[in-house]
Amino acid sequence: MSQSRPKRTVLCVSDHTGVTAEAMAHSLIARFDGIEAHYVTRPFVDDTAKVEALVKEIDEIAAAGLAPIVFSTIIDPELWRRLQRANGLVLDLFEIFIDTLTAEFGVQPSATVGRYHGIGNTTTYQVRLDAVDYALITDDGLGLEHYRDAEVIVIGPSRVGKTPTCLYLAMQYGIRAANFPLTPESLDDHHLPQALQAHTDRLFGLTINPVRLFQIRQKRKPDSSYASLERCGQEVEMAERMYRTNRIQTLDTTALSIEEITATIIENAHLERHLD
Amino acid sequence: MSQSRPKRTVLCVSDHTGVTAEAMAHSLIARFDGIEAHYVTRPFVDDTAKVEALVKEIDEIAAAGLAPIVFSTIIDPELWRRLQRANGLVLDLFEIFIDTLTAEFGVQPSATVGRYHGIGNTTTYQVRLDAVDYALITDDGLGLEHYRDAEVIVIGPSRVGKTPTCLYLAMQYGIRAANFPLTPESLDDHHLPQALQAHTDRLFGLTINPVRLFQIRQKRKPDSSYASLERCGQEVEMAERMYRTNRIQTLDTTALSIEEITATIIENAHLERHLD
Repeated sequence: MSQSRPKRTVLCVSDHTGVTAEAMAHSLIARFDGIEAHYVTRPFVDDTAKVEALVKEIDEIAAAGLAPIVFSTIIDPELWRRLQRANGLVLDLFEIFIDTLTAEFGVQPSATVGRYHGIGNTTTYQVRLDAVDYALITDDGLGLEHYRDAEVIVIGPSRVGKTPTCLYLAMQYGIRAANFPLTPESLDDHHLPQALQAHTDRLFGLTINPVRLFQIRQKRKPDSSYASLERCGQEVEMAERMYRTNRIQTLDTTALSIEEITATIIENAHLERHLD
Repeated sequence: MSQSRPKRTVLCVSDHTGVTAEAMAHSLIARFDGIEAHYVTRPFVDDTAKVEALVKEIDEIAAAGLAPIVFSTIIDPELWRRLQRANGLVLDLFEIFIDTLTAEFGVQPSATVGRYHGIGNTTTYQVRLDAVDYALITDDGLGLEHYRDAEVIVIGPSRVGKTPTCLYLAMQYGIRAANFPLTPESLDDHHLPQALQAHTDRLFGLTINPVRLFQIRQKRKPDSSYASLERCGQEVEMAERMYRTNRIQTLDTTALSIEEITATIIENAHLERHLD
């Protein structure tokens, strides 16, 4: 755990979900080594009473220690004016860009929250939900009969990161991603498993440092043969050999987050994000 | 589908995954009614060759029609200088805030990508992955023996949005969310299903407009009794009555996105986002 260094409160304030403010806050604060932050999100701050309660909360945090950093995506000018009075560094993440875009487009922005995190754009939204369903019915080697609909089939040993990657591809980008586990049995002749042979154009192989895989599996099934270092090493080696033999694109997930794995797969497999 | 109005190309450019640039781009563009955007993400733009190729691509899009809008989170000043030469409206999403934060913190920002979408903060990251595992082993009434570890148990009729909500709670916020389906059988005496009786403090009920539920189920199992309007109406009515009888917090998901459902559950159930 971290030292007892005092954490700076970072507030992500929004009249909607707060997802965009959170993304910006984390990306910006992460640039400053040594700044330890305590993140708090305040979504749906959309009336005077809520913003005044929040100002009071910010002032109390400031009075007790360090003044908070406040990242706001609140649209209403009156609510923003009130929020600015709080005793913290209060930043409007949208205003400067909205002004520039207004000039560029030659149209005024709407005064209400837009479509992005709502379901206004129902087609895109439904694509994302359908892709989540797809990831679940084709998870871990299930639903082979649906592989013809896959945009990518992620393969690799157990606990290499296949399932969260496919779920993130689906949830964030509406991409239909199946995943198939490479087991010692399916790998022992270096051949591509039967189920995958008709889909070689869409396979993407994940690999991992065997010691890291050992750590992950030990947490899950301590002292099992499944989690032994020897077995982890063998499975990774067999998987990598199979990828090479069959010229399957490969990514080492050892030091990568799900977001990084996802972005890399999309780039390298030339997939399309379904965001429009 | 949309009219053949020309779409404006919106590029989300990053030296990392592009997730933050995408969130900002979508939120900002969504404020302008009538602007139809074609979103393109270019992650990992981290050297001169990649940025020059991108400048060329932008110039070609501009030459063929409308100049693109470019949202950049590139950190390297030299790469940013080159990107700015492109024939489009090129916006740096970070710079203005980094300058302000540098003054506030009194420390210089690092020149490299931070921790947020990486796994530098391994504790937080592992919490998110563990929560995804948790959502999967407790999906749709599975794994009742794990309910003691749930931070929230989302309940409701089939196709009301339970599973994607629990996955999003896990993936985005590291919250352990189980979900349990309310079936006609489990509801017919208005009593709380047996499996939920020890957990009334953590139940959150979802409901939906019956006509919307009918539309969703028809897409899934056309002309089944499961998807009939009558059955949808009955299930919703029984679920809502059960929520009232047992004083369970409720949310109508009819017009809400997964992000909106998630943010509302976190607020109303007083859950904590595990983001630090």
